[in-house]
Order: sequence, then structure tokens, then C-alpha cells
Amino acid sequence: MMKNSSPPLSGGAVDRGVMEDLAAASRILADQGVFDAAGHVSMRHPHHAERFLMSRSLAPALVTANDIMEFTLTCEACEARGRTGFIERYLHSGIYRARPDVMAIAHGHSPSVIPFGLVDTPMRATYHNAAFLAAGVPVFDIRDTFGVTDIVISSADRAAALAETLADKSVVLLRAHGFAAVGLNLQAAVFRAFFTEVSARVQLQTAALGGPMAVLDAEEGRMADAINLATHGRAWELWKRRVTP
Amino acid sequence: MMKNSSPPLSGGAVDRGVMEDLAAASRILADQGVFDAAGHVSMRHPHHAERFLMSRSLAPALVTANDIMEFTLTCEACEARGRTGFIERYLHSGIYRARPDVMAIAHGHSPSVIPFGLVDTPMRATYHNAAFLAAGVPVFDIRDTFGVTDIVISSADRAAALAETLADKSVVLLRAHGFAAVGLNLQAAVFRAFFTEVSARVQLQTAALGGPMAVLDAEEGRMADAINLATHGRAWELWKRRVTP
Amino acid sequence: MMKNSSPPLSGGAVDRGVMEDLAAASRILADQGVFDAAGHVSMRHPHHAERFLMSRSLAPALVTANDIMEFTLTCEACEARGRTGFIERYLHSGIYRARPDVMAIAHGHSPSVIPFGLVDTPMRATYHNAAFLAAGVPVFDIRDTFGVTDIVISSADRAAALAETLADKSVVLLRAHGFAAVGLNLQAAVFRAFFTEVSARVQLQTAALGGPMAVLDAEEGRMADAINLATHGRAWELWKRRVTP
Amino acid sequence: MMKNSSPPLSGGAVDRGVMEDLAAASRILADQGVFDAAGHVSMRHPHHAERFLMSRSLAPALVTANDIMEFTLTCEACEARGRTGFIERYLHSGIYRARPDVMAIAHGHSPSVIPFGLVDTPMRATYHNAAFLAAGVPVFDIRDTFGVTDIVISSADRAAALAETLADKSVVLLRAHGFAAVGLNLQAAVFRAFFTEVSARVQLQTAALGGPMAVLDAEEGRMADAINLATHGRAWELWKRRVTP
Repeated sequence: MMKNSSPPLSGGAVDRGVMEDLAAASRILADQGVFDAAGHVSMRHPHHAERFLMSRSLAPALVTANDIMEFTLTCEACEARGRTGFIERYLHSGIYRARPDVMAIAHGHSPSVIPFGLVDTPMRATYHNAAFLAAGVPVFDIRDTFGVTDIVISSADRAAALAETLADKSVVLLRAHGFAAVGLNLQAAVFRAFFTEVSARVQLQTAALGGPMAVLDAEEGRMADAINLATHGRAWELWKRRVTP
Repeated sequence: MMKNSSPPLSGGAVDRGVMEDLAAASRILADQGVFDAAGHVSMRHPHHAERFLMSRSLAPALVTANDIMEFTLTCEACEARGRTGFIERYLHSGIYRARPDVMAIAHGHSPSVIPFGLVDTPMRATYHNAAFLAAGVPVFDIRDTFGVTDIVISSADRAAALAETLADKSVVLLRAHGFAAVGLNLQAAVFRAFFTEVSARVQLQTAALGGPMAVLDAEEGRMADAINLATHGRAWELWKRRVTP
Repeated sequence: MMKNSSPPLSGGAVDRGVMEDLAAASRILADQGVFDAAGHVSMRHPHHAERFLMSRSLAPALVTANDIMEFTLTCEACEARGRTGFIERYLHSGIYRARPDVMAIAHGHSPSVIPFGLVDTPMRATYHNAAFLAAGVPVFDIRDTFGVTDIVISSADRAAALAETLADKSVVLLRAHGFAAVGLNLQAAVFRAFFTEVSARVQLQTAALGGPMAVLDAEEGRMADAINLATHGRAWELWKRRVTP
Repeated sequence: MMKNSSPPLSGGAVDRGVMEDLAAASRILADQGVFDAAGHVSMRHPHHAERFLMSRSLAPALVTANDIMEFTLTCEACEARGRTGFIERYLHSGIYRARPDVMAIAHGHSPSVIPFGLVDTPMRATYHNAAFLAAGVPVFDIRDTFGVTDIVISSADRAAALAETLADKSVVLLRAHGFAAVGLNLQAAVFRAFFTEVSARVQLQTAALGGPMAVLDAEEGRMADAINLATHGRAWELWKRRVTP
């Protein structure tokens, strides 16, 4: 990237409704307790696969459409207008580069999910709503590649390594940090972030009972997730209503 | 069922207050945290044992009396008026067919209940409010009869197998899916759905302490449940007030 | 008690503010999550040691001063005015009879407390606010004296046995049922009901860590409770403000 | 301190905005569930290192700027105006005396934190937001120095012993009592109090899974905490907005 270059070209105007949905996604995940004062959701630009949309650095409960910025996949702002992006926008761009199928990403630090990044117990798909976990939930430990760090995904290199760990899955855990959930559209990413959190709680409680767990196997998960993808609009409408003034 | 047949005959007009109570039941269980963006309550038609009433496919927190549809026990709508039923209305019809005594059913996916469908530990009646559990809480594993599925109770066959597992009990768990609670009237089904969830939480916490649990035995449960059935109106009134505009 | 007898004499008029505080106590414990749709608080009549005041049978969140009834220690209403008392008013009268020092009682079914009535692990005083537990928390199992029952404290005999188990302590657990907390005044009983619930949660979480617990011993508990008794007005004022229109 | 002496000199007028932030800090920690009806936050006087500012004795949810008092490091009020300080202001002064770097302190009794003061399991830094815990979290047991007490930090001696246990760390636990979190400014102390509570919950849940925990090590913690200190304003703004009328 040359110095003094002009800002990168935008992927083009985006419908106001799309921007409002992306902003609502942040507020939804805050309202539902998946995000706290941090956490962010992004989506790939609907008209340009090399651009993505994401809030400026702001508590997710406060995000509105005017806070949405557009970035290149090298994380440059197309039109900053004085706004500052999250440093972890690299996490998003790294996944968009590695996964052409992914259209939206949610990244947060839900307390119920953290334990599964700290111990050897893998996350399971405890019920149909969490069917997308049945394909497996990899854990990214930044130490493996980068040694001692501040654990922030603040560079293209770190993001690329994270995306490699994610591979073709729907969710990746970040050791001592949080999770990222991806989807073929915004609603799917939000749905998965939410039920990653819920299923983590269910699994923690199930573990207290001891013994083997008859979770969804991979094939059941694939079939049940198809149902989720066809019906998650019902949850989205409810959740959006709660955060729409 | 022949093609082009007329819609099935309705069981007759139902009091507006009954419809409003059925709608309130959905909102109550959402308000109390037993339902999330999914979950549904039904009741047998008060004047026709071969019909039942149930919301169209809608987040339970949003259900009003106008969303209530009437179905035959083969799950055909008597008057759809453009409304779409839940695919899992089959779960309800299957139980109404197998259990003439059952007048109302609640089905949800409460996170606290899921663990008991995944492990060998049976649910117990941890206290008087959950006395209806003392008779035993069977677990339905759809794999046993149908192999790999999407785990949805979306056919008469699946519902019949579930009802067979329920047998004469008040609650059945569905592996990796949720629970169904039944009652002799709407208030009883709601009361049981609520205290199934609470008792599950109590049992999970008790398990963390270790050692045998002096839960209600079957006879204590029968006697304590008689008290619940005589007094659950107090809870209903409180809960309904919270969800009535 | 003869038939057709006149109603028992009242202990005399009670300040409106006292009645409002007693009603607020019910609403406080509901608002704070200690009571659900059931639970009740009583106080000894301020001018007559053989009378006590307690809400009619009503969800505790809804109690107002007009719902307060006066009872003899044999549980007869002094002036029913068409109102129905809780059947478990016997629990209260039994304790007032056995414990002249007790001026107020709260009885509820908090989910966090139930586990300690089901297993052998005794409740401990996990921190200063729960110092009143350090003297010991006995468990009443109704089966020991009465065999199979509906577990309701619905008679003088059952209440006397419960009071005997309580002995000189501040809190008694009822197996598969709930707890009763007593105090030298209304605020103390409410404070103890609240922190019985909180300390139960703390102990459940501590148990998950394993190993011995350095809880308050009896002498520390006695000293720390003296501080609580001198300062619980701060909590009362905050809690009351939340439930006062 | 001589009798009949004049009140100690104030450190000087403090900006109204500073006083309002200090009051907001109490309300924030109550609103976020870290404080209950008790708990207090203080800050060193911005213009005088031998004075500190702290609310009068009042439930933290109710504190406003007018409730802020100024104290010497011997805990005398500079201008009481009829207001009564918390007896535990000694806890604050003791830390300010021992730790010249500390500019703000929060002390509370969060239920999730209590367990780690009762057992041998040390608190860990389960994720980046709790990075300040990675340096270690000492436990102060008042019995070790003072034998049987009411466990209140109500004297300079007790506070000095507590400060000695805190040493150069960010958080100290008080056995069967609570915690104190310190920071280089008010926002940092509040941030640390909040994430001490959250990380305690995470660790309790992780413990239920068993096995070693890949928590942040000391060096990772140091690096991640630098990020927190640069970004905690985002959380502060969100939290403050919630408690500002």
C-alpha cells in the first residue's frame, strides 16, 4: 500500500436497510447477552466481494447505521470521515479472504464460551439449534504461531492463522479470548453466535452430570442445521424488534 | 387425505377468552425464560376432542389470539387464512391422539432441560412444585426408531413414537432437542413446563454437591402434585398479568 | 375451637406504615428473586404476642397492605372479610409458638436453596452477609415424623415438628420444599431470606472448585452477624425503593 | 489525633465532573451486578495525595455527587456536613498509604468472587479482559493476623495488613468477605472490579470441565492488560450511559 494514495474505492452504495440490519445485529447480540461492552459483527459488501462493512470502534449496544464503515480486505477504510475502526477488523478480513463462501462474521467474548478455549474438552452440538457445531469447533491458540502476544487479532498474519484454524467450520474459538462465528448471511452469523453461547452453557451444565453425552453427530447436525437455516428468520424478527426503537 | 378436498370442519367457535389464554400461555413461557425464540403451546378444542388449537409459526413472545389456528388430529388447518402452522404441530397431534386425558401441551427447548436428554441421569422431582416429575421422566431418542434425522417431530410417525415414549407420564424429554409437558388443562401444562425447567436447574446444582438426593418419591409426588393442581391458578394469574398489555 | 364462635379478638390496630412494610417485604423478596409465584412473610403483632400478621393467599409480588390478615397462633383469622389465608400459615404460627424471640418469618422455595435440603452437605456461612448461617442450618424431613405426605406444613403438628428442628437457629431447610428464615424484626427476616439464597449460590459454586472451604466459623459468624443487624437498614431502604410505586 | 481539633484541611475543590464520575462508578458497579446493596468506590484526591474521595454510607445504586465525602488518610472527614462515612473507608486509606501508584479502589462482595477466597484454587486470568489477574491474586485471611473478628476492615491496622497482602497486585481477595480492585485511575478500577467478577464466573465454569486451563500467563497478561488500559473507555462510556438519568 503506497503512502499518500487516495482512499480505496468503495464497493458502491448499500441499501439503508442493509446497513440498519448490520447495526441491529450488533445491538441484538448485546441485548441477548452474547456481547458485553465489546464484540463486533461484519458483513461482506453485497456488491463487491473485496470489501466488507463493519461498525467503527464503539460498544455494540450503541451501533447505528451511521457507524458502519467500509473496508478493503487489507483493512483500509474507503471513507473514514473521522471514524476509527476496531483494531480487530483484521480478524474479519482474514476470514473473508480465506473463505469466499462467508458473507458475515460475529466475534465476541461470551463468558460461557471462554472455558472451551481453555481446556481440552471440545464444544459439542448439544441440541438442534446448535447443529452447526456438530461439524467440529477448532480452537486457535495464538501462542502456537506467534508466541507471547497481547492475544489481539491485530494483523493480517494473525488473522490468516486464525482463518486457517477455522478452516471450513462455522465457529472457531480463540484461546483466552473469545469466538468467531460465520454464516452465509448476516442472520445466520447472528443465529450461530447466539446458539454458540447457549450450547456452551448447556454443555457446561451437562458436564456437571458426568458420563457420555448423546450430542448430535455430524450427519444429524448437517440435517438439523438445514432446518435452522430455513427458520432463523423467526428468531431474527423477534430479536430485532427488541432493539429497534 | 384426498386432494382438492374442502378444509376440514371446525370444532366450533371458541370463547375469545380461551383464545386469549392460549396466546398468553406462549407469551408467559417466553417471559419466564422457558421458551426462547421458539416453543409452542396447544390445547384441545373445548368442544371437539378431534381438533386442537395452536399458534401459527411465530416467536412465542409475539403470539396473540388472532394467531391461533385450529387443526385436525391429522394436522390439517380448519381455516388457514394464509397463516402457516408450525411443522412441529405433529408433536401435539400425536400426543392428543395417544392420550385422551391430555387437554394441553407445551413444547420448548429450555437450556436447563437439554442436559437430561443427553446423559443417563434421570430427571427427579427436586421439590413440591415439580412433584409431577416424580412419576418418572422418559427420554425419547429419535435415532432408536428413525436413525439419522433432522430431529424435528415433523410427521405422524415420529409423533406416535414420541407419544409412546411419553406413555402415561406428564413430561417427556427429546434427546438433543427439548421437552414436552402435558396437562389436564392449559394452566397445568404451563405450570409443568415452567417447573420442569426450574427443577432441572435445581437438580443440576444439586448434582454438583454429590451424593444421593432425597427427592420426592412417587407417592409423595402424587400427593404434592394434587396440591399444585389445586393452587396453580395463583402462579397463572401472576404470570398472565406480566404479559397482558 | 367451638363452632359458631365469634371471631377471635384482634391484637389491636396496627400502624399503616407497619402494614405497608410487611406487604413490601413480600414484594421485595419477589423482586429480588428469592420468591417466585409463591412464598410469604409474616410478623408477630406489635402489640399482642399471640397474634401475627400475614398476607392472604396471593402471589407475593402483588401483596399490598390491604391484603394483610391477622391470625391467632391457632391460625384463625381475626377478621377475614372474605379473604383466604395461605394454608402454610401454620408454618408461621408454629414457629411463633416455639420461639418467643422471633418477630418475623419468611418462607420460600428459592431454587438455589433446595439442593441443601436434598443432600448431606450442610449449608455454610460463605461470607459476612450470611453470617447468621454459621450457627448451623438444620434440615427438616417431614417423612421422619409423618411418613408420606404432600410435604405442605398445613397443620399445627407439622409446624411444631418443624419448629423443633429449627430450634434456636435462624434458618431451617425443608427437604424437597424450601426454607424458613426468622429474625428479631421484619428487616432481619428479609435480609436473612435474601442472603440464605445468595450464600447457597456461593456455596454451590465453591463446591465445584473442590477442597475444604474456609467459611466463617461460629464465633466469626456471631460477630459478623452483629454488624449485619446494625446495618441491614441500608439494604432494606434500597430494596423497598425498588418495589414502592 | 487530638480531640476538639478543627476538621482537617481539604485537598481543594474538585471538578463537578470528577465527583459525578466517582458517583457514577458506584452506580455502574451496582447496575452491572458487581455490587449489591453494599460496595464502595473511592479515588485519591486529584490535587492532594493525602486525601481521598468516597461516598457516604449509602447503597451504591443510590450514590450521587452530593454524597461524596473527602477523607484524610487517617479516615477523618474534611467536611462531614452530617454525613456518615462507611466504616470500611479504612480499607481504602490503607491501600492509598501503601500504594502511591493507586489512584482508585473498588471494594465489593460479588458472589462469584467469594469462592476463590474460601478454597486453595487461585484466581486465574481466563481471558484478555481479565489480563490484570495474570500477575496473581492474593487472598487476605484476617484470622492470620487478628484471630476471630467480625471480618470488617474497620481499622488502620487491619487495612495495613490487607494492603501488605495486596502488595503490588491489582486485586486482593478477602476470605469470606469480598475483593478489592485497584487502578491507576477510576475507570481502570471499575473495569477491573467488573472483569474480576466475570473472570471468576468463567473460571468456576471451566473448573466444571476439569483438566488444566490454558489461562493467560504473566507475560501475556501484561501485554493484554496494556490493551485493556488503552480501550476501557469504551466500556466506561456504555456503562455510564446506563446509569445516567
